[in-house]
Amino acid sequence: MNRAAIEHRPDPAFAFPVAPDRLRVRLRAARGDLVSCHVVYGDRYDPEGPEEVVAMEKVATGARHDYYEAHLHVPRRRVRYAFYLHDGREGLWYGERGLAADRAQAGAFHCPYICPGDAFTVPDWAADAVVYQIFPDRFANGDPSNDPAGVEAWTADARPTATSVYGGDLEGIRQKLPYLAELGVNTLYLTPIFASPSNHKYDTTDYFRIDPHFGDLDTLRALVRDAHARGMRVILDAVFNHCGYGFFAFQDVVKHGQASPYADWFRIYEFPVRTRPQPTYETFARGVWTMPKLMTHHPAVRDYLLQVAAYWTREADIDGWRLDVANEVDHAFWRAFRQVVKGIKPDALIIGEIWHDAAPWLSGDQFDGVMHYPFRDAVVSFFATRQIDAAAFDAQLADWRMRYPEPALLASWNLLGSHDTERFLTLCGGRVERMRLAVLFQLTYLGAPMIYYGDEVGMEGGPDPDCRRPMVWDEARQNRELLGWYRQLIRLRRNCVALRRGAVRTWWVDPLVGGYGFLRLADEEVVGVALNNGPRPVAVTLDAGAFGDAPRLVDAL
Amino acid sequence: MNRAAIEHRPDPAFAFPVAPDRLRVRLRAARGDLVSCHVVYGDRYDPEGPEEVVAMEKVATGARHDYYEAHLHVPRRRVRYAFYLHDGREGLWYGERGLAADRAQAGAFHCPYICPGDAFTVPDWAADAVVYQIFPDRFANGDPSNDPAGVEAWTADARPTATSVYGGDLEGIRQKLPYLAELGVNTLYLTPIFASPSNHKYDTTDYFRIDPHFGDLDTLRALVRDAHARGMRVILDAVFNHCGYGFFAFQDVVKHGQASPYADWFRIYEFPVRTRPQPTYETFARGVWTMPKLMTHHPAVRDYLLQVAAYWTREADIDGWRLDVANEVDHAFWRAFRQVVKGIKPDALIIGEIWHDAAPWLSGDQFDGVMHYPFRDAVVSFFATRQIDAAAFDAQLADWRMRYPEPALLASWNLLGSHDTERFLTLCGGRVERMRLAVLFQLTYLGAPMIYYGDEVGMEGGPDPDCRRPMVWDEARQNRELLGWYRQLIRLRRNCVALRRGAVRTWWVDPLVGGYGFLRLADEEVVGVALNNGPRPVAVTLDAGAFGDAPRLVDAL
Repeated sequence: MNRAAIEHRPDPAFAFPVAPDRLRVRLRAARGDLVSCHVVYGDRYDPEGPEEVVAMEKVATGARHDYYEAHLHVPRRRVRYAFYLHDGREGLWYGERGLAADRAQAGAFHCPYICPGDAFTVPDWAADAVVYQIFPDRFANGDPSNDPAGVEAWTADARPTATSVYGGDLEGIRQKLPYLAELGVNTLYLTPIFASPSNHKYDTTDYFRIDPHFGDLDTLRALVRDAHARGMRVILDAVFNHCGYGFFAFQDVVKHGQASPYADWFRIYEFPVRTRPQPTYETFARGVWTMPKLMTHHPAVRDYLLQVAAYWTREADIDGWRLDVANEVDHAFWRAFRQVVKGIKPDALIIGEIWHDAAPWLSGDQFDGVMHYPFRDAVVSFFATRQIDAAAFDAQLADWRMRYPEPALLASWNLLGSHDTERFLTLCGGRVERMRLAVLFQLTYLGAPMIYYGDEVGMEGGPDPDCRRPMVWDEARQNRELLGWYRQLIRLRRNCVALRRGAVRTWWVDPLVGGYGFLRLADEEVVGVALNNGPRPVAVTLDAGAFGDAPRLVDAL
Repeated sequence: MNRAAIEHRPDPAFAFPVAPDRLRVRLRAARGDLVSCHVVYGDRYDPEGPEEVVAMEKVATGARHDYYEAHLHVPRRRVRYAFYLHDGREGLWYGERGLAADRAQAGAFHCPYICPGDAFTVPDWAADAVVYQIFPDRFANGDPSNDPAGVEAWTADARPTATSVYGGDLEGIRQKLPYLAELGVNTLYLTPIFASPSNHKYDTTDYFRIDPHFGDLDTLRALVRDAHARGMRVILDAVFNHCGYGFFAFQDVVKHGQASPYADWFRIYEFPVRTRPQPTYETFARGVWTMPKLMTHHPAVRDYLLQVAAYWTREADIDGWRLDVANEVDHAFWRAFRQVVKGIKPDALIIGEIWHDAAPWLSGDQFDGVMHYPFRDAVVSFFATRQIDAAAFDAQLADWRMRYPEPALLASWNLLGSHDTERFLTLCGGRVERMRLAVLFQLTYLGAPMIYYGDEVGMEGGPDPDCRRPMVWDEARQNRELLGWYRQLIRLRRNCVALRRGAVRTWWVDPLVGGYGFLRLADEEVVGVALNNGPRPVAVTLDAGAFGDAPRLVDAL
């Protein structure tokens, strides 16, 4: 047995309640090492002896590891458990003290008590969401009267610069709700809409005011109301890591220096505040002078920003927040944020922007999910650029799937691209057939699909600012076939609980032909998805065992 | 390379700031597998290239793993890092995406921003604490006028039953402060002192009142004041997992059933409340009817108990809390508890009672440390019962040392026994020489030593209630030699910063002769400790390299 590779921990990635009386436990072993794996468990206050034994299922295989899972039925909520592993040659017990032939020596693991206060609950609707990301200046101009000066021509050939403005606004989004409804999405995520001098508005000047070029509180309310009427939810962007240079508190420090009551809302290296040659204050990223970093651990800053979150959640009846640069803000702030937002709207959704491993934010006390960029990395590498084969793709998916608790996976947004990346079709070199496969995968896999505005009509674009072209509304310039494909798949997902909530199992991996298949298993139905990501048609015989004695198999496409 | 065994995670066990600009990172590999290990790191917002490279040090070897550590200097707080590992045959990069020959394919790990709000800070004095645990009914009777009815004779031969009372009280503790000062301890931990019908008082009737047999608020204040005058701190026991049967809220439910406003402070299976044949309500452990479990996730319960914590912290000026059954109370409660207590007294100490892996509570947002029972397990097995050899002892210590962030290790209480275990000398079969070695180890190792009252004078006792005999004050019945040994070692520890705060490295492991040695390394001084836990004298030559070119080595004993 590869003993050094055996891993279980009493943390949310390896042991988490799926109900008050049901604990899911995971175990990791070297890939291909074990032939069987059991859990023995009982009440922590019972003597060892009259315990339950359950065989673990191998649920996934990553690049280096196999993953096993089992569910423990724990009506008394207090669990002690140990594993018994066999690799075909030796059997070993595994507990908190390590691996041993003798059970007592291995010890046990403990889930001391399944506390209702610690349950990882995400909004029930999160798993059913099909998200549509809108960059408001570029989606639709519904009210030309509020256009900023110097708007550029809204054409399919427009190529924005970093400072272009196009006049898109909230009223425009509201007017396009029928289009979005027909597309089938049910959750709109708007990048920032509060007052700011830039087109992206990630440099907030006034957190309590909608940018006048986008609308006002009434416009937002109208948008949310009409969206709700169509069964759509609206998520706003919370930019709390940093503010804009014009934010009143920062301006006070610019004016009054160290004497400003807001001086410690920021980290000023040297007074007076200067922006050149390098900012004399901490900023977002490296020296972005327009975005002074906020000291979110300072009680006054925290309280101020929590008021912002409370205000919009309450006043505009929005359905949640996407958190910008979420990973550079302290965990304590996000815990307080969750309490405030969920206190006002218990089923509000909280999604962090984190591009890397987000496990530290996904144990139930902070975010519901993240923008799942590692998902995108895998999909880009397999479908768009074909840099990895089906085996590597499967392993990457498995490793990420096993890194987070399941509620976080269900709530996270699986994206193909965003306002911060090249467009997917561009990464495909314009090959729509590759994109079609990727979209099929995205809309049938575990996690809420997030569509970046315009992807569905075949928009292209390189890195920012090129990925932020104005939405192509001219049907002659839209890829209507791709749009139909999106509509069909979104409808399929929304009608099929297995695609939204079913467990994932790998079904078919053939690196030679580029074949990849997986199952989605729900109590009510089972879906198998088989994708040919290779250059040629393939005839393949797949194991239909997972469908049991289903009276009929239906071709869903 | 044993690839499946390589492990790093962006969590507090593997990456934690030791200063705002200094990140400690750990890596785990199969035991004996790697020959070198480096970290390459830089600012997350810089391109890869002009980065720092640092060789990692192998700091510990556990049963299955080697552990490597390095410190990253990160003045800009935002870190991206990757590992380069070599096993003598192949070199591989290791990042968030896994192991790969190609660096880009392996990806990187991220510590996105060292947030001041997330720093794991424990009270500075915690690392200097020598803790003395007192079970008040059994330590000293300073005021016979408040004795409960039926006190038993306070003799060295007394053998308590589960219901015995002896009349010990707070005034008794106060009167014995000179003894404690001479012993050298500087932190007193008192098991519960609030009103309760039992001798142990883990079934609280009134959280706002000192048990009248122990004293009152004034007695407590006098004790704390006099202790403080001698440089000693006082820690109380917070029993918040459950209350006593007589607690007003539970009594209200007993009387009014479902109509009681306190009905949901508890988990009542069936009304009316009954205690027999089985309690119809959830209790501590299995059906302990005298201890109804409190629903700490209920806002009213949480607020009530937080008021209790605030009241005593403020009114009695105590220095912290030991948390009973801490692992069965929700994390959210403990986070709020930390905020309340540290809000009143920033350098208050918070120590959880957790017998198993406590990592989920030790990431900086909940406890400072725990009662370190796994330390005790190792020490009992090596020194007292000699069930494990020096190699196994070393491995167990290493694995536990690498499981928690260092601040938690410094603050945790390394105990040989408590009111919940057999006495250490009894586990030694009365062989004082074994206990002497164990005490030497305890007082020179990493973590705050906790002495259970009476151990220092050679008291014996089997499992509860026998381990709770009244303190032996009769000097003729005390082991004065052992007491002298304790005094000497406590003085040594208190005068030597390396013993309190130095890093630990294994120095000498010889299972054949029972030899075990380790180093404590501080900037100011280095201490080597060598223990002969075997049956015969041993002559051994040890590597003094760690002492550098010290002008002289001093025999501290």
